[in-house]
Parts: sequence; structure tokens; C-alpha cells
Amino acid sequence: MLMPTARPLGELENAAEFIPRHIGITADDEAKMLSVVGEASRRALIEGIVPRAIARNTDMRLPPPVGEAAALAELRAIASRNRVMRSFIGQGYHGTITPPVILRNVLENPAWYTAYTPYQAEISQGRMEALVNFQTMVCDLTGMPIANASMLDEATAAAEAMTLARRSVRSKSDVFVVAGDCHPQTLEVIQTRAAPLGIELRVANSAAEWAEALAGDYFAVLAQYPSTSGRIDDLRADVVTVHARQAAFIVAADLLALTLLAAPGEFGADIVVGTTQRFGMPMGAGGPHAAYMACRDEYKRSLPGRLVGVSVDAHGNPAYRLALQTREQHIRREKATSNICTAQVLPAVVASMYAVYHGPQGLRRIAQRVASYTAILARGLEQLGWQPRSEAFFDTLSLHTGEQTQVLLARGHALGANLRVYFGEYLCISLDETTTREDLALLWSIFARPGQDLPEVADFERGLEPAIPPQLRRTSAFLTHPVFNTHHSETGMLRYIRSLSDKDLALDRTMIPLGSCTMKLNATSEMIPITWPEFAQVHPFAPADQLQGYAELDAQLRAWLCEATGYAGISLQPNAGSQGEYAGLLAIKAWHESRGEGHRKVCLIPSSAHGTNPASAQMVGMQVVVTACDAAGNVDLADLEAKCRQHAERLAAVMITYPSTHGVFETQVKDLCAMVHRYGGRVYVDGANMNALVGVAAPGEFGGDVSHLNLHKTFCIPHGGGGPGVGPVCVVEDLVPFLPGHASSGMTGRAVGAVSAAPLGNAAVLPISWMYCRMMGAEGLRQATEVAILSANYISTRLKDHYPTLYASPNGHVAHECILDLRPIKERCGITAEDVAKRLIDYGFHAPTLSFPVPGTLMVEPTESETLDELERFIEAMVAIRGEIRRVESGEWPQDDNPLKHAPHTAASLLRQEWTHPYPRETGAAVLDARRHAKYWPPVGRVDNAWGDRNLFCSCLPIQQDEH
Amino acid sequence: MLMPTARPLGELENAAEFIPRHIGITADDEAKMLSVVGEASRRALIEGIVPRAIARNTDMRLPPPVGEAAALAELRAIASRNRVMRSFIGQGYHGTITPPVILRNVLENPAWYTAYTPYQAEISQGRMEALVNFQTMVCDLTGMPIANASMLDEATAAAEAMTLARRSVRSKSDVFVVAGDCHPQTLEVIQTRAAPLGIELRVANSAAEWAEALAGDYFAVLAQYPSTSGRIDDLRADVVTVHARQAAFIVAADLLALTLLAAPGEFGADIVVGTTQRFGMPMGAGGPHAAYMACRDEYKRSLPGRLVGVSVDAHGNPAYRLALQTREQHIRREKATSNICTAQVLPAVVASMYAVYHGPQGLRRIAQRVASYTAILARGLEQLGWQPRSEAFFDTLSLHTGEQTQVLLARGHALGANLRVYFGEYLCISLDETTTREDLALLWSIFARPGQDLPEVADFERGLEPAIPPQLRRTSAFLTHPVFNTHHSETGMLRYIRSLSDKDLALDRTMIPLGSCTMKLNATSEMIPITWPEFAQVHPFAPADQLQGYAELDAQLRAWLCEATGYAGISLQPNAGSQGEYAGLLAIKAWHESRGEGHRKVCLIPSSAHGTNPASAQMVGMQVVVTACDAAGNVDLADLEAKCRQHAERLAAVMITYPSTHGVFETQVKDLCAMVHRYGGRVYVDGANMNALVGVAAPGEFGGDVSHLNLHKTFCIPHGGGGPGVGPVCVVEDLVPFLPGHASSGMTGRAVGAVSAAPLGNAAVLPISWMYCRMMGAEGLRQATEVAILSANYISTRLKDHYPTLYASPNGHVAHECILDLRPIKERCGITAEDVAKRLIDYGFHAPTLSFPVPGTLMVEPTESETLDELERFIEAMVAIRGEIRRVESGEWPQDDNPLKHAPHTAASLLRQEWTHPYPRETGAAVLDARRHAKYWPPVGRVDNAWGDRNLFCSCLPIQQDEH
Repeated sequence: MLMPTARPLGELENAAEFIPRHIGITADDEAKMLSVVGEASRRALIEGIVPRAIARNTDMRLPPPVGEAAALAELRAIASRNRVMRSFIGQGYHGTITPPVILRNVLENPAWYTAYTPYQAEISQGRMEALVNFQTMVCDLTGMPIANASMLDEATAAAEAMTLARRSVRSKSDVFVVAGDCHPQTLEVIQTRAAPLGIELRVANSAAEWAEALAGDYFAVLAQYPSTSGRIDDLRADVVTVHARQAAFIVAADLLALTLLAAPGEFGADIVVGTTQRFGMPMGAGGPHAAYMACRDEYKRSLPGRLVGVSVDAHGNPAYRLALQTREQHIRREKATSNICTAQVLPAVVASMYAVYHGPQGLRRIAQRVASYTAILARGLEQLGWQPRSEAFFDTLSLHTGEQTQVLLARGHALGANLRVYFGEYLCISLDETTTREDLALLWSIFARPGQDLPEVADFERGLEPAIPPQLRRTSAFLTHPVFNTHHSETGMLRYIRSLSDKDLALDRTMIPLGSCTMKLNATSEMIPITWPEFAQVHPFAPADQLQGYAELDAQLRAWLCEATGYAGISLQPNAGSQGEYAGLLAIKAWHESRGEGHRKVCLIPSSAHGTNPASAQMVGMQVVVTACDAAGNVDLADLEAKCRQHAERLAAVMITYPSTHGVFETQVKDLCAMVHRYGGRVYVDGANMNALVGVAAPGEFGGDVSHLNLHKTFCIPHGGGGPGVGPVCVVEDLVPFLPGHASSGMTGRAVGAVSAAPLGNAAVLPISWMYCRMMGAEGLRQATEVAILSANYISTRLKDHYPTLYASPNGHVAHECILDLRPIKERCGITAEDVAKRLIDYGFHAPTLSFPVPGTLMVEPTESETLDELERFIEAMVAIRGEIRRVESGEWPQDDNPLKHAPHTAASLLRQEWTHPYPRETGAAVLDARRHAKYWPPVGRVDNAWGDRNLFCSCLPIQQDEH
Repeated sequence: MLMPTARPLGELENAAEFIPRHIGITADDEAKMLSVVGEASRRALIEGIVPRAIARNTDMRLPPPVGEAAALAELRAIASRNRVMRSFIGQGYHGTITPPVILRNVLENPAWYTAYTPYQAEISQGRMEALVNFQTMVCDLTGMPIANASMLDEATAAAEAMTLARRSVRSKSDVFVVAGDCHPQTLEVIQTRAAPLGIELRVANSAAEWAEALAGDYFAVLAQYPSTSGRIDDLRADVVTVHARQAAFIVAADLLALTLLAAPGEFGADIVVGTTQRFGMPMGAGGPHAAYMACRDEYKRSLPGRLVGVSVDAHGNPAYRLALQTREQHIRREKATSNICTAQVLPAVVASMYAVYHGPQGLRRIAQRVASYTAILARGLEQLGWQPRSEAFFDTLSLHTGEQTQVLLARGHALGANLRVYFGEYLCISLDETTTREDLALLWSIFARPGQDLPEVADFERGLEPAIPPQLRRTSAFLTHPVFNTHHSETGMLRYIRSLSDKDLALDRTMIPLGSCTMKLNATSEMIPITWPEFAQVHPFAPADQLQGYAELDAQLRAWLCEATGYAGISLQPNAGSQGEYAGLLAIKAWHESRGEGHRKVCLIPSSAHGTNPASAQMVGMQVVVTACDAAGNVDLADLEAKCRQHAERLAAVMITYPSTHGVFETQVKDLCAMVHRYGGRVYVDGANMNALVGVAAPGEFGGDVSHLNLHKTFCIPHGGGGPGVGPVCVVEDLVPFLPGHASSGMTGRAVGAVSAAPLGNAAVLPISWMYCRMMGAEGLRQATEVAILSANYISTRLKDHYPTLYASPNGHVAHECILDLRPIKERCGITAEDVAKRLIDYGFHAPTLSFPVPGTLMVEPTESETLDELERFIEAMVAIRGEIRRVESGEWPQDDNPLKHAPHTAASLLRQEWTHPYPRETGAAVLDARRHAKYWPPVGRVDNAWGDRNLFCSCLPIQQDEH
């Protein structure tokens, strides 16, 4: 039987065809597994695990599933309601050409998009090399010494720059000065972020206001370069002024412009942020794109986000790994530099590959073409009687159009072109890599008065120079490293892409049983729509009537997610789980304030919580109070109640994770919620473990007030090697008015401002979750949850004699993941959980989650998508490793010389002529069944994390002299 | 400098952007290489190589190049002139759903599509496993014991079956009986093929004629099952009749129908052919699709085409390799079983993966749905007053529509549906996997008379059975092997696909320097259009007004290819080089006949020719006479003239390859052509080496009368692991009337009939060559040729002290490939060319062409797409191997125990605890520079070809008992 539980739906359709494609186990498998777990049926298993008090009694009301082709056809119809126009809007989102070799082999390649965040350095060398290329590209173009591996979007990057500056400068002022001609969405997100932190914003809307502000007191300033309306300012004198006040100068800069413009780092900028969208990532109605942040060397230990650095492996060879992780929320919790857990790895890889493929000359040639077209456009407009407002510009012109603004805008729409209205009486026109001669003719025809002759491109194109003031022209070299000067043929590029991806382990080769990360199938038919032009080629600030497809997608997906969670309202704007969490806490805070209870600022968080929880709480200005857990890993209800009572007056929220981070359905969760409510607090249920809930219990029903979801976990958006994520925030009825607004796109009047640059956040990946829900239906989604729980229990049961599971419910069952306790082994023979994690690499697996939430453990989450065959392979490997450990325990192998301590083994290390280890070479290689499973060879041995942090190096490796 | 020679084209465009993407070397590289080769400029190099007498003086007149995005936009406009309709035409081409996981990860994945034919077994285990799955699938579904790895199309497969039968049966008759309700295009190709071989066709257009024919004398019969009009006949009694006459029964069968119908093998068929198109390959206006051929075990050594079998490797492990190659043209020449050199590997892999993914139950479910829809359609039509002509049918109904035929057809077109007109007064309707309830409503609405109520699907769907007679229902199991019953989840399927492709080496990981195969870049932007619905989802026999896009593509591409070759007319119909060659010889033959010189049947072929040449000549009934080559490898002109004189009366043609298969531009080619013409013969110039000619010399100008091209070599269609190919036939003015016709699609009145099932052959891959020409322009194409020649000379020069080049022109230069002579090495120390080829695998390379055209040599063709870096890596490997050989020559390593004889080395063989070889393990692994190049590990050791032929086994390997 191929379709375990899908009900027969008539002979003429196979509407549930996708369900057995998504779910890895068959009905036969299920029967076998249930018998091992000791349950008669899946239903009985679930009833024994999910507390009766919270179990759903009704099915989710979702449309019945349809097959892959039918779902694609339905989504195609929705997509067709978006109108793809020529976009001249700019404002941080530009037309770009994704080189086909990168489109197909990175963006559409599961080896890249199904990879996880590179915590396991040894199996992530490929994408970390791409990220180091990204960091080098950002450093070179901005002229800064250090850059991180990407930010969520330009607006949040600017907001993070603000807090980075505040942490870093000597000035004690609370004032942050922002040039008024930054992108409006950037201003808006900064406003949202500043308020809870007590930062006073001063927006300078004219040169005079700017001069006045700079003469005052502040801890940092932000200017856009070139400005949102296209002007290029000479910021050099301002930087001197700002530095004299012990304050930081932040520049939001366009990377393509920087190939022609003096680099901010060269004139003293302290922090530079921006987006890399126009380096090959489609506009996608706002995302996902990789933003960037670069800063002075002194700030590096405060830099938010992921940072990839070079270290060495056990054999002394260079190897990449995530650097300076001690800055991050999972270690520093509420003292973290930021609550960000992810980057936008996949878009960052695309952007870095774009730079690798074009190289410095190619990028400059593209920029020059854009600048030339813009200069020609300006000349033509002048000929038509329109004077651009600035004489110095790169790609954007601003025209004072006064009362004609709307008429011209409408004429543009009629001709298929979107212009940008700026402050009501100006029109801005941005050009980009995709601009053609025909576009100029089109634009001129919009602005020509009746009877006027249209200008001719040919009249201007000879000898015309870009309108960049000589003193601001870039003279320094950039992207001089060989990696940017080698792979310029498609054959070369293709092989470079493949060679990197081959170094890594992703879902296309192995299960990634990462507890709390839910690495499930990212189905091809879910991925196909994201590159459809109707979704990919639209601007986030296009007129609403051109975005009806997205509006419908948004509405349907929100409705379905409300069904799945039991909440009343949802916003898809947060573009990462961390941002959803932040938005959720903002909602609680704003709700308290709306009732005159703004003093409620205490946030109770159990000690077992994800580090993001306290980090997010501090970002909204809440005071974190930690509550205890009991020996079984559950929230200590008595302690919680004591703390509630203690802080009753000031209690704002309690943040819990459900099922708990310990992989257990706590039975008293409903009581817990009720109790918090009695004390006037709201309950935040972290959605990290939603994959154990969909269809079986709903946080919005059992007492949660707010949750965020991770669409990149439960709803199939791929992890992309560490992003993009999507973190919708879900709330109960009375909190709906406090979901994030987005004034820049017309969503005004909300109590809470924007939390992301774009109104729908990472809009372009939402079709993935839509497709998943549409093809699974209520029954499929519930089945997925149940099988995920069954598979976790199967692994826990099968491994119990080898590695005990740390926490379980009273009947011995776990939720959708299980924590294997390796601490006793370490005590006995020194073999650590990390050794086992690294040894799993030899067996061809990505390790489970290491030392979270309990140090010295491995947390295993198989998800519903794994086949029984793959579960068995994992169990086999774990049992084999346990056998190896026994030989260390027995003293047969020394504690410091055994296959676990030397794991992972590179081929080179196993082939060395001399072999001094007590175990055979074949044992080192650890192949379970060569005929059935190809051996994965790690490209490096175990990476030394500490060495890299002591010798921080975060750019491309210098090439040895002897290499050609 | 990134763009070596593209002329500056104005600052506003980068129209030549693709040229440096396609060509691997930069201007700097070129300068370095020229200095090594000893020439001052590329021009000087070429002038020194291409004989002045034939050098082009004029540029090709092609449109100037445009960039990738612009070319895609232009092609999109052409594509949009095709109309995608609901196709109910059938006739061997059906709607199908390519499972997205297969679409993305096979059809659109360079690891699959850039692979070569699996001659080098050790680096081709993945695709050979897929082909064995294909063979097993065909055997199981047809009920036959052996099947090959695919044929070019169903029509040519039927024609090949005819000749296979003639070779195999005891009957001496020349008569071949064909049921008249076979697909018309099959009949047509059989007619073309039969005539030159003296086979008399007897087409039986009624039951009476069939009965009469079967009572007569014949060597074989062919019937379609189900018939082209949908009828299912019980053929069992006929098989007995035929066998009684010592003749063979050939069945052309639909594989999807065979999941429900009794298998031809079960009722005694001797040969079964058909197409696998509807197993996931889009209709694509006719191809490429994998046809199949299965036969009785006794016929296996006469079976045409590729056959993959299981053998053992050096370690005794099972390993795949091409079986029974002694049947083939490259060994048996004019005595070969067929002139076919390729299969349709990529479409065969897709079809096999479709079966792996759906499994037997899934396939049967699809077939049942199709049959149910068809039964419902019939009921509804009956309700409307239309009686289907047959009561037994699977997916196709035939209705007598008489005078209303055209009206109904037009009504269908108006509603977006294509029906099929059959013999003028019938309409046929075929359903398929994509059929929906809406389609039935649409079809009924076409046939409803004014005022008639439309039937409702719901009225019929309960309890309805497929209209398959009980005695013809399939009862036997099929696809019982675990491979067809395991990978049914998408995660499992994705990993299976990846695990297979990882075993193989394709262009995405290494150069494939195969002489005479021209493994150049298959650019992504060339590949993207082939899956556009406008190209992929149209039926080859749709009305011409719906295929205007293809018509334009065809016309433009032919015009450009005429420019490139100097010929006056071209047909793109031949779907492989062998078919182009065959069509070219047919043209010559028909031309002679048109002049009353049908007795001209002698075809002179130099001894150095490709084996295909004599094989093709025999297929058109010509008599092959071999002429000599001189010591330098050139055609011996004196001998040729002597043979011309000797056969002057009967001389039909001379076949040459230019530049020669020895990699040399023979200087006297123009004289040769003129001389042949003087004796009344025509000159066939084999286009295999066209990559050395485009833009520098044109066979149609220097005296060739006919050539075929290999678009899958020179014009960038990927090899797909051994197909699809495209082999256009090009002719001078007076031969244009003798290009192939295609009556089934309305191309009537030609002297020569169809050579392929579809009028445009493998139409769906033609956009690849169109894109290539459009993005390169005349200058880019010429540059490609010149760089290909430069790179070959660079390798020849750099390796001359290590491996002498066997043949060169007087100035020491070669053409676009060089033959390295390893025979002296073998004499000295027993190391063979094969040893070097296998040792190259250890170094991560696909070997050059082995022992063609000269035994004991390697023929190296780098193409223009390789980077200098990759050429250096190859040279480095070859030099390192030469060093290893020296240690054998010196006696340091025994002749039978050294890294060459044991190559390629698997990881397992190197890790064995005991190491007895005289060379270190690291030497065995042969990594040149681990940091720059990932090590490729072959999955098997050297494969024993002879063992496999002695123990022929061509189906999936039985699974060991101990495996779960």
C-alpha cells in the first residue's frame, strides 16, 4: 500500500497524491513502527501523548487536498492576478538578472536550498566558502574591514546598526539622527525599534535640519548613499563632525553604486548597511534578499548576525566555521547583541555568486551601463523640459511634478511602467541592470507633452559620462581576490558551484535529524512557483491593484494558518522567527499600553527556553525573569506561580515553548495559561515545535495569546543553508489590532509599526507554504504531525538500550523529538556528545542538535518526511557508534585515540602511509553499506573553533604563491 | 580582460556577453597558449592549419549576437506563436505529468544532461543503473526477457524491429505485413526503410486484408496494441498463425496500457516496440522521447541499440557496463545490426524514474484513471447519440463522424481542444494522465447537438469498469523489484536520484576530452526554453497554425545552419547523427534514381571512417568499398582515384570526414571532391568534426554535396548521457528535393519519405541550438572554432614530450583534437591506452576517446569551453601518469602491479587493512590538489567487459536476502 491513510477520493482523481510523497513512511512501515513503540494505532499513540485537555476535537477547516498539478494550476491562477510591470520604483528594490547558471544550480538546487545553518562546520564548508565570499564582497565594496554573513533586510539591518552603535560608541546620548531621505521603510522599522529601547529619533528632512541635528548631541547618525531620491551627497565633512562627538556614522549604501562611488569606509563610515538584492535576487515583492552589515574592526564582537571565519582543522588545514558565537542569543540570551538566529544564506549565496561570476570588471560594467542610461534619461527629460532635482546621481532621478504627479503616474501605469511618488509632488525614476533603450523611450513618452518630439538615445550616448562628481568617484580596487577573477565562463562557474555544494551535506543526501529545527521535505512543486515571474518580478511597493495575487495568497495562507493554530489574526510580515517573536512581544506590550498598563514590563521565561526568547524580550524593553524547571524538564508551575505573584503588578508576559524544548507535551499547559491570565499577563507560546501540534492541538485554543510560527520549519520553506526564514506572528482576537503595520505600503493606523522592510516580509517564499497546505489538506497535515511524533518515538524506543532518552511523558513517550543523554558516557570514558555528532558525519549524517537544550545531549527530530529505511540507517549508525564507545569504555581503545575523537575522518587522513591508530582504516571510514549508500567524505577534519576566534579572519583566504 | 575578442558594442549594451561565458579561455590565456604553440596570433594559427583553398573569405551572415536575457525574450516571442491546446490527438503522443522531483533533478540537472554515453563504465554506474531500471521496466511491462536501453522513436524502433526480424527468422520471404491501423508515422518510416533493403510491405487495411495477408508468405508482421484508433484486438490466434510460418510477430504496444492489458510476451510476441513518452516526457512536438525494443532471448545478439548489462569489477563486485558491443557499428561496420550509435538516454532515465517513483500500483492507478475516464467519455457520447467504433478500448475512442468531421474538429479548436481526424471521416479522441472531469465536459460539448443536455460525469463514475475484455486483462505482476517499490516519497526519490548522479562524472565536474564527441558547454540559458510549455506541451500533429512558433524556429535555425555549412537546404528531422547520415545517403540514392542511374550503388569509404558510415551505406542498399589511408592518416588519393575509376559506372558516393578522424585538415580535400564529381559520384562529408569548421570553412563550399550535423556536438545540445541527439542533414541545391518528407504531417510530394516519427524529429531540443547561435553570432561561432583548435594544439604541444601526437599537418599542428600515441609505451612496458584512460579516472577525469580511430591511442578534444585552468589540470594529470609509467618502464613497479593496472581505485580498495602493492595508498588515490579540486571516488573498480558478455544479465540486480 502506498498511501497509508489518505481516504479514497473517487477513482477519477488522486487528489491526496501528495500526502504519501511528503510523508516518508508507508502503512506497512507504520504498523511495524507502532508495534515497536508498543501502541495499537497511530490514534492511540497520539491520544497517549497529547493531553486530553488540549487535544483538538474538530478537524481543521481547510480546503480538501488537491494533487501537485492541480495545486500548481490553482496557484498559477492566483499568481496571474499580480501584474508584472516595468518597475522604475527603486527604493531599495531593483530589476536584476539572475544569471541562469546561478538560478538553476543554486536557487533551484536542493543541494543548496535544503541545507541547514552551518553549525556543523565540517559538513558546511561549501556554503561557508560562499558566505566568506559574500563577506569579502561586502568588505571590498564598502571599504570596511569586517562584514557579517547577511542580515534580514536593509531596514532591520539599519535598526541593528543603530543598536550596535549605541552599544559601541562613547557618546551617552539617546538621540539617533536619521537623514530624512533614507528609504521610508527603513525609517519606519527604525521607529518601531527605537521606541521600546528609549532611543529618541531625530529625522532631518532638509539640509538645514540635517546641519542643525549634526550640531547637536547624539550617539549616531544614518544617511542613505545615494539617497532614496537618487541624490549623491558628499558625506566626508559630516563624518568628521560626527566623529568629533564620539558618535558613529552609519551609511546605508547601494552596493552596485559603490563600484563607481567612493566607498563609505574610505571616508570614515563606522557602520555600513544595505541590501544585495540587485545582485541577482528577484524583487519578489520584498524578499527574501540578503541585507548586509559591515563595521569598524573595533565593533566586531558586538556585530549582530552570523559571521563566518577561517579557522584550522585537526590536521592544521584551513577550515571555515561560524565565528564569535559567544555574541549570540543562544549563549548570551538577554545580553545577546541581537535576537537574530538566522541570516539570509541562500540569497547571500546568490549575491556572492553573482559577484564571483561577473567579477569586478563585470560589476563595474553593469553599474556603468545603469549610470549611463540614467544620464541619458536625464538629458532627454531636460530636452522635454523636466529638470532633475540633483546633478549628481547614479541610477535614480527625482523630478518635481507638482500637480501633474498623479496624471504622470497614471500615464506610466497605462504604458506598463511603475514610477514612484515621493512626498506627493515628486516622481522618482530608478533604472537598473534590466534597463533597455526601449525603456528610455517609454519613460520619455510618459513625460512628453502633446506634440513634443521624443528624444533619441543615439543623440546622447556618445561621450556621455555618469553623473557622479569627480571627487566621489571610486578609485580603489575591489574584489581583487582570485575567486572573483576566475570563474567567469559558465563551465567554470558551474563547476565551482558544484564543487562547493558537494562539500556539504543537505537533505538531498541525508536526513538532518536536528531537534527543534524540523528539517522536512521541501517539495519541488512547492519550490517551483517562487521563480514564476508573477511572484518574482514584482516590486513590494507597486500599486495594490497590481499585487492582487499576493493579496489573495496572503489572505488564504493566513486563514489556513489561523485554522492550524487556533488564533484569530496573523501577520506574515516578520521575515524570521526572531522577528515574529519580537512582533509578538510588541503586540503584548502595545496591548498593555493601550489599557494604560504600560508599566507591565516583566517577562517570565523558563530556564529551558530558547535563547531567542530573552533576547527578544529585552528588545521590547521588557525585564526578563527566569523561572525554574523541574527534574523532568517541565516548567516548575509552583515557581512560575510564585514569580507571577511576586511580579503581579508588573507582569507583562510569560513565554513558553510547547511542546517543551525538552520534547515533552506538558500536561498542565492549559492551567499554566489560565494562571498567567489571572495575574494579568499574556502567554507567548513559542511556535518552534509547531510540527508536533498541527491538527492535534492549537495554542490559540488552549490558552496562548501570541505565537510565532516558523514557516521554514513546520510549513516547508527550506532552510536555505541558514535562511531565508518566515516567522508569522499569530494572536488572539483582542491582540489583532496590535499586529505590525506598514505605513510605507499604506498599512497605516496600526498601533505597532513595521518590523520588516516589506509589508509581506519574505513574500516570494510564501507560495511554498501555500502549496504545502493546499496539497496536504487538514487530514494530510494532521497525519504529518502524527507521523513526526511516531518517528521520534520509534527512534527513542529503538535507541533506548544504547542512549537513554532524557525526558518523556509519564507513559514513556516523547513528542516529535527526543533528547539522547550522553552525559553518563562522558563521565565513564570521556567521549562527548560532540564526538558522537562528529562521528555521525563519518557515517554520512548531519548530526542532531548538540547540547541544546541540555548540555551533553543530542536532540533528535526525524520529522514525518524521513523513510523508515533512513530511520533504520540512522539507528544502525547510532548503535554502531555505541559499540565503538564500548571499546573505549572497555579500554580497548584509548580515550584520546579512537574513531570518535578523530572524527570526522577525511580521506587524506585515512590514506596516509603510516597508520598509528588502534582501529583499522576502514573503521575510520565508517561505511555501513556501500552498495546502498554512497560514502560522504568530509572535506576537512574536526574544526578548531577556539583557534578561529583567537585569530579572527573573515575574508577570502589568501592564495598561496605557488598556485596558478 | 574578460571578453577576449568580442568587439565593443557601445556602452549601453553588452550584447556579446555570452561569448566569454561559452568560451573558457580569456585573452590573457590565449596569449599564453599561443606562445606555447608558437604562433603570433589566433589568426596566424588558423591560417597555418586550415588549407587556403578551402578557407572561408566571407563571414557567416547571422544576426549579431544578443545577451542571454535578450535571446530568451526573443525566443519567448517565437514560442508564444505556438498554441498550447488540450490535446486529444493521441497517435503515440500523450499528455503526461513529469513529476516535479524528476523534472528538476533529472531533466533540468546538468549532472544528468551533460553526461556522455557510458562507454567508460566505471564513471557511469549511476546512469547505467537507471538504464537497467528502464530495461527491467520494459521487460516487465511487455512480458519479454530482454530489452535494450532505448530507441530513437517508436517508428524507427518498428523499422529496426523489421530488420531484426529479417535477420533472425527462418522464413526467407521478403514480405513484411503491417496492420493498417498502426500509427501512420510508423507506417511511413517503415516504408522509407523497407524500400532500399528490398523488403516488400503489405499493409492490411481491414480485417479481411489482415487475414488474407497472414495466410500468405512473409518474414514478419507488425500490429499496434491497442491500435492507433484505440481498438484492442485479441492477437493470440494470429501469433500462432505467424509462428507456424517461421515468421516473427512484432507488437507495437503502449506501456501504460500494458499495466492493464495482457503482455505481448505472454501471448507469444517475438519483438515488442513502442514509446515511453507518456512516462513523464512532455510531447515536445515529437521528441525527444525514449522508444523501446524488447525481444525474445534468441534475438539478443542481433538486437540493435545500446544494451546495459551487469558484469563484475576487479574486486568481484557487480558493476554495470554496455553489453554485447560487438553487435555495433563501431566494431562490425557494414555488418553491424544497425547504424544506431546513441540511445535516448535522458528521456529513458526520465521514464525509468517515473516508474520508480510511481511504482507498479501507481502506474496501474494512473492507467485505471485513464481507462475510467475513457469509459465515461464513451458512455456520455453514447448518450449524445455517438457510438464508439470499438467496444474494447483503453484510452482512445474512434467515432464515425462522416461529413460532420471538419465541423466538429473546428468546434474543438474553438474550444481549445485538438481532436484527430482519421481517414477523413472519423474522429479519434485520446485521453491521458492529465485528463480531468472538465475535459470530459468539454469533449461532450463538442459533440452535443443544439439543445441536447450534456451528460454528467457523476452519472457514470460509480461502478464503471474499463472497457478491456476480460480475457485480455493483465493478471501477471510487474515491476516487483525493490527499486520500483521503495522510492515513493519525494525525499526518498530525491536521494535516489542524487545518489545515482553522484556516481557519475559529467561536465559539471570535469572536462570530458572525448575526441570526436565535442563535449562543450550546454549553457543554462540554452536549456531553459526546452521546458517552456509552449515548446514542451504541443503535439507534433497539431494543426500547423498552432505550431507557428516551431515553424519559425525551424526556418531560422535552418537558415543559420546553411550559413555555417555552406549548404542550400537542411532538414532537422533526423533525430540522431546516424539518422542524418542515413537520410543523406537516401538523398544521394534518390537523386541518382531520379536521373535514371539507380544502378549507382557503390559507396567508397576510407578505412579511417567512423563505423557508422559503412553501416548507413548498407542500410540504403549501397555496396561499401573501402579505400586506403596513407601513413600520415590521410585519405590515399591515388587509391581513391583508382577505386573511382574501377567503379566509375556504379559510383554513387564517397564518404569522408573533414577534418579527418585523425584530427587533421587534409589539404587536398577540394581536389578530392572535384575528382569524385568527375566520376559521377557525390561527396558525403561526415559532420562529426564540424566543430573545427564553423566560420573557418564550409563543406558545402569546398565540394561536399551532403553532410549531417551533430547538433549535440557542435551546436550545444547536451549528450544527455547518450542521447538525445539531433542529426540534421544538409545538402547542396540540386539535392534539396531529396530531403526527407513527412506525409503524416502534411509534408507530401517528396521523393524520400520520413526518416523519423515526427516531422521535426527531436523538436523540443532545437531551442538549444537556436539560443547558441543567437547569443554567439558569426563572430562568436568563429571564435569558438578557433579556440577549440587552439586548445587542442596547446594540449598536443604541452604533451608532446610525454605522449607524441600521432598525426599532424605538415606544420605540426592538429585540428580540434589530437591523437596521443601510447603504442610505444605498451610495447616497452605493457601499459595500455586503456590503463591510462582508467588511471585518469583516479585523477578525476573522464577519459579521452580510447582506441578510435587508431587502436592503442587516446584522442583528446578539449573544445573551446574548457578553461585554461582545466586544461592545465588535465596536462598535469597526464604528465603525472607518464611519470608513473616511467616507474613501470624502469622496473621499479612490476608491469602487473602498479597504479595504472589497478586503476581506477575505489576508496574501499585503498582502505583495506592489508596493503601489498609497491606504491603507497595516497598514490593510488591520485589527488593532484585537494584544496582546488574535490576528489572523485569511482563506485567500482575496473569493470570486466568480457565476463558480462559471457554471463549476460540485463535487468535489475536481485537484492540480497539480508537486505531489508
